[in-house]
Amino acid sequence: MATKNPSTEEARIRQLSDDWVAAVRSKDLNAVMNLYAPGILVFDLPGPLQYEGKDAYRQNMKEWFESFKTIGYEIRSLTISAGPDVAFAHSLNHISGTRTNSEETDVWVRATVGYRKNDGKWRITHEHFSTPFEMTPPYKALLNLKP
Amino acid sequence: MATKNPSTEEARIRQLSDDWVAAVRSKDLNAVMNLYAPGILVFDLPGPLQYEGKDAYRQNMKEWFESFKTIGYEIRSLTISAGPDVAFAHSLNHISGTRTNSEETDVWVRATVGYRKNDGKWRITHEHFSTPFEMTPPYKALLNLKP
Repeated sequence: MATKNPSTEEARIRQLSDDWVAAVRSKDLNAVMNLYAPGILVFDLPGPLQYEGKDAYRQNMKEWFESFKTIGYEIRSLTISAGPDVAFAHSLNHISGTRTNSEETDVWVRATVGYRKNDGKWRITHEHFSTPFEMTPPYKALLNLKP
Repeated sequence: MATKNPSTEEARIRQLSDDWVAAVRSKDLNAVMNLYAPGILVFDLPGPLQYEGKDAYRQNMKEWFESFKTIGYEIRSLTISAGPDVAFAHSLNHISGTRTNSEETDVWVRATVGYRKNDGKWRITHEHFSTPFEMTPPYKALLNLKP
C-alpha cells in the first residue's frame, strides 16, 4: 500500500541515504548496488559524460573502492524533496581517506540524487557528482573548496 | 485542483524546460528568473560550491548573459521523472555561441534540475551543472567530451 504522507517518504529517502553512506564507508559493493535501479544514469566526477545502467556503473564503483585503503564519507546539508513516488535530494559530500597508493584524499563535492519508488521500494535512479572548475585555462577542477 | 496524471506533469516540466531554453537563448534575465523558486539552490559550472537563493544566482546569470554576444543552447536526452508535486530531470546540454571577447564557446555539460509545484505552478528549486574532470594533476575539466 502506498504511503501518501510526504514526510514519511522523506524519512525513507533519508534512511536510504544513510544506508548508501554506510555501504560506501564499508566498501560493500553489493550493498551499494542494491540501492540502485537497473536503469540508473550517473554523472560522475571522472569521465565519460555519463554512465548508463547498473552494470557500467558497478565496474566504476568497484575500481573506486579498490583505490582506497579506508574511505571516509560524510553527507552535509542534505535537502530532500519527496513526493509519493518521485524524489530528489542535494547535498555537499565530503570524501576523505587514504588511497592504496598512500595518498590522502580530502575533497568536498556537490551531489544531486534522484529516486523513484516502484513496488513500494525506493531506489536511486540518478546520481550527479561534481566540483566547479576555474573559468580560465587550464580550467582546473576546484578541489579545495569547503562549505 | 491538483492533476494526478504523471504524464501530464511530465508534459508541464518539458514545457518549463523549453521555456527556460527560450529565455536563455534570448538572454531574457527576467524570463529565466520567473521560472525559479525563491529558495533555489544551484551547483553551477564556476565556483563557489553553491549559490543559495534567487538573488545570488540572478547576479551570476546576468554576468553570464553579458559575456555572450549570442548564446546557442540545446538540451539533449532530457529524461523527466515527475510526481504530482515533485519532479527532477537530467540531460546533456550543449552551450555554444560567441563571447563578447569574440571567443567561441562550444561545450557539452551534464544538467540535473529539480522542480516543485506550489499553488498549482511548477518552479525550478535546484539546478546542477557540471563537466567531469581528469583524475590526474592538474585535474583539468573535460570540456571536449561529446555525447
